[in-house]
Amino acid sequence: MPSPNKQVIFSKIPTTYPLSGEHITVQTSSIDLDAPLGESQFILKLLVLSVDPYMRGRMRDSSVKSYFPAFTLGEPMNGGSMSVVLKSNNNKFKEGDLVYGGMGSFQEYILVTKETEALYVVRNDPKKTGIPLTNYVGALGMPGMTAYVGLFKYGAPKKGETIYISAASGAVGQLVGQISKTLGLYVVGSAGSDDKVAYLKEIGFDAAFNYKTADDLTEKLREVCPKGIDIYFENVGGQMLEAVLNNCNLFGRIIACGMISQYNRERPEGIHNLMLVVGKRLRMEGFIFSDETEMEEAFRKDMTKWVLEDKFKYRETVAIGIEQTPQAMYDMLIGNNFGKQVVKVADL
Amino acid sequence: MPSPNKQVIFSKIPTTYPLSGEHITVQTSSIDLDAPLGESQFILKLLVLSVDPYMRGRMRDSSVKSYFPAFTLGEPMNGGSMSVVLKSNNNKFKEGDLVYGGMGSFQEYILVTKETEALYVVRNDPKKTGIPLTNYVGALGMPGMTAYVGLFKYGAPKKGETIYISAASGAVGQLVGQISKTLGLYVVGSAGSDDKVAYLKEIGFDAAFNYKTADDLTEKLREVCPKGIDIYFENVGGQMLEAVLNNCNLFGRIIACGMISQYNRERPEGIHNLMLVVGKRLRMEGFIFSDETEMEEAFRKDMTKWVLEDKFKYRETVAIGIEQTPQAMYDMLIGNNFGKQVVKVADL
Repeated sequence: MPSPNKQVIFSKIPTTYPLSGEHITVQTSSIDLDAPLGESQFILKLLVLSVDPYMRGRMRDSSVKSYFPAFTLGEPMNGGSMSVVLKSNNNKFKEGDLVYGGMGSFQEYILVTKETEALYVVRNDPKKTGIPLTNYVGALGMPGMTAYVGLFKYGAPKKGETIYISAASGAVGQLVGQISKTLGLYVVGSAGSDDKVAYLKEIGFDAAFNYKTADDLTEKLREVCPKGIDIYFENVGGQMLEAVLNNCNLFGRIIACGMISQYNRERPEGIHNLMLVVGKRLRMEGFIFSDETEMEEAFRKDMTKWVLEDKFKYRETVAIGIEQTPQAMYDMLIGNNFGKQVVKVADL
Repeated sequence: MPSPNKQVIFSKIPTTYPLSGEHITVQTSSIDLDAPLGESQFILKLLVLSVDPYMRGRMRDSSVKSYFPAFTLGEPMNGGSMSVVLKSNNNKFKEGDLVYGGMGSFQEYILVTKETEALYVVRNDPKKTGIPLTNYVGALGMPGMTAYVGLFKYGAPKKGETIYISAASGAVGQLVGQISKTLGLYVVGSAGSDDKVAYLKEIGFDAAFNYKTADDLTEKLREVCPKGIDIYFENVGGQMLEAVLNNCNLFGRIIACGMISQYNRERPEGIHNLMLVVGKRLRMEGFIFSDETEMEEAFRKDMTKWVLEDKFKYRETVAIGIEQTPQAMYDMLIGNNFGKQVVKVADL
């Protein structure tokens, strides 16, 4: 007998912010959970899904080439997710196994007919370790790996240097900041509300400010980074990047992780002071966590240890119910959320 | 008895292009060539001086901090030069020695009262090797070292890749292109006249175009770099950089050597597509040859060998007479010259 199956559908290409009910809609399809499974097939029940800034770039015309595939109009979106195996005819995925999906389909039930590398059973059983399921799409998932790889591989941090992190209370930034403190860096962050700034100070940032109330970003950075900026963990782009370039020290590194302030503009802002890259001998480097497979084992080992030790705080905003996904996406992009934005779809 | 001593004076801070007679003037001072020399002192007679794009950045208010010192208003400018020792009371600099100066003073005669690291006697005697003196401020000097370090250290070239070089017929670009050919790269360049484009093809570039007559730089680069751009040797900045970012391949490297199109603007152009640095995982890195002392020996060895073998063509524009320096500087900045711009001050 068919069961209802709610799906998060990419319904229209946005030009600025994607709106709930217009660009992203929740529709109810159906799935027969009792139908016999074909060879190697299994059914996943979605527990948690992750909405992340990079997904905005996938909401485009599929004829535009880029290095993450576009979402397909009229089809469910996909991304980081945690699911449980409901039933299975596949000996690698057993009933009750918890499964991480890097590009998991955003629907309540998923009939998996083809295995992909992006799906795997999590090794440490969360029921035994007590690790919250949401952590698997946060500190232990893409955002955690992004923070880890970005800082260690592209930041080349040295004790005593100053790191500045924009969107510092976000899914990636809060980890970058806390790891940086353990390395002996002077850690400065910015965020978009006084609450977020207070949180940054609470988790050990040496200085933090609300960029929305700063009159002049170049001056503000000069004030909060008195020794200049050696490493910039770039999540924002635009005017913030200009202000950082003005404050970078010689041989500074810019870890280009994302530029969220630009994703929802029809025309991105221009950067007028890139000449400083030459004079100051700066290195700006873009990266995407999924290229960095050689660091994955070290990341999993270190981060699992840190999570089990409760070493770092990790703030999340959890929306309840798959219907909240479009709004959660909007809130994350505009900064209405706080910390890592996830959607809890069902209990285990 | 005092002899006249013509000097190239930094006389006014320019806001756009520096003009002869206004921002740079030639004045006649005097020097007593027969006066007794103090301990360790010596007198140099200037033979060749070099005008280079980076010098524009030194024509600023000295209160503005940067990583090359500002020229002093009312004083002689300085830069790459070749001189001969006229008389000496210093056993490291003997009469008749040819001396290279990285920051040699731009005046016909220089009384050296303090040795600096930037002054040294050239090892291969040009009178025996036949190497033209101008080569010491070109292929064998700062521009050669810039080409060598930029390409090998920051470009990480791999056989079969495409390199694109802007200002490709200039002091640095023509060397980058010819070295790149020997490494098995597909070499593409742009320049500002049809003559220069013809020269690029003559020296082995696989493709070249006149950027001044290209309607759309992004489209033009797509046409001349059919496999995309893996390495960009950046001499130009501005709109050219935007067009290159549009055409960069995944993991492309941007060797940020200079941005000459921006030096004489009151407000530099904005770069609107820097987000591509993230999506394409690009690396953009600024450098200045003088930091790269660990590569200097390899450079001198390789480049001297190449010059002695006549391996590469090296086009120069030689202005005759120190009075021509201000105009030579203007011509170099606006692109009226062809190849490396030097000024021949006196014969050996």
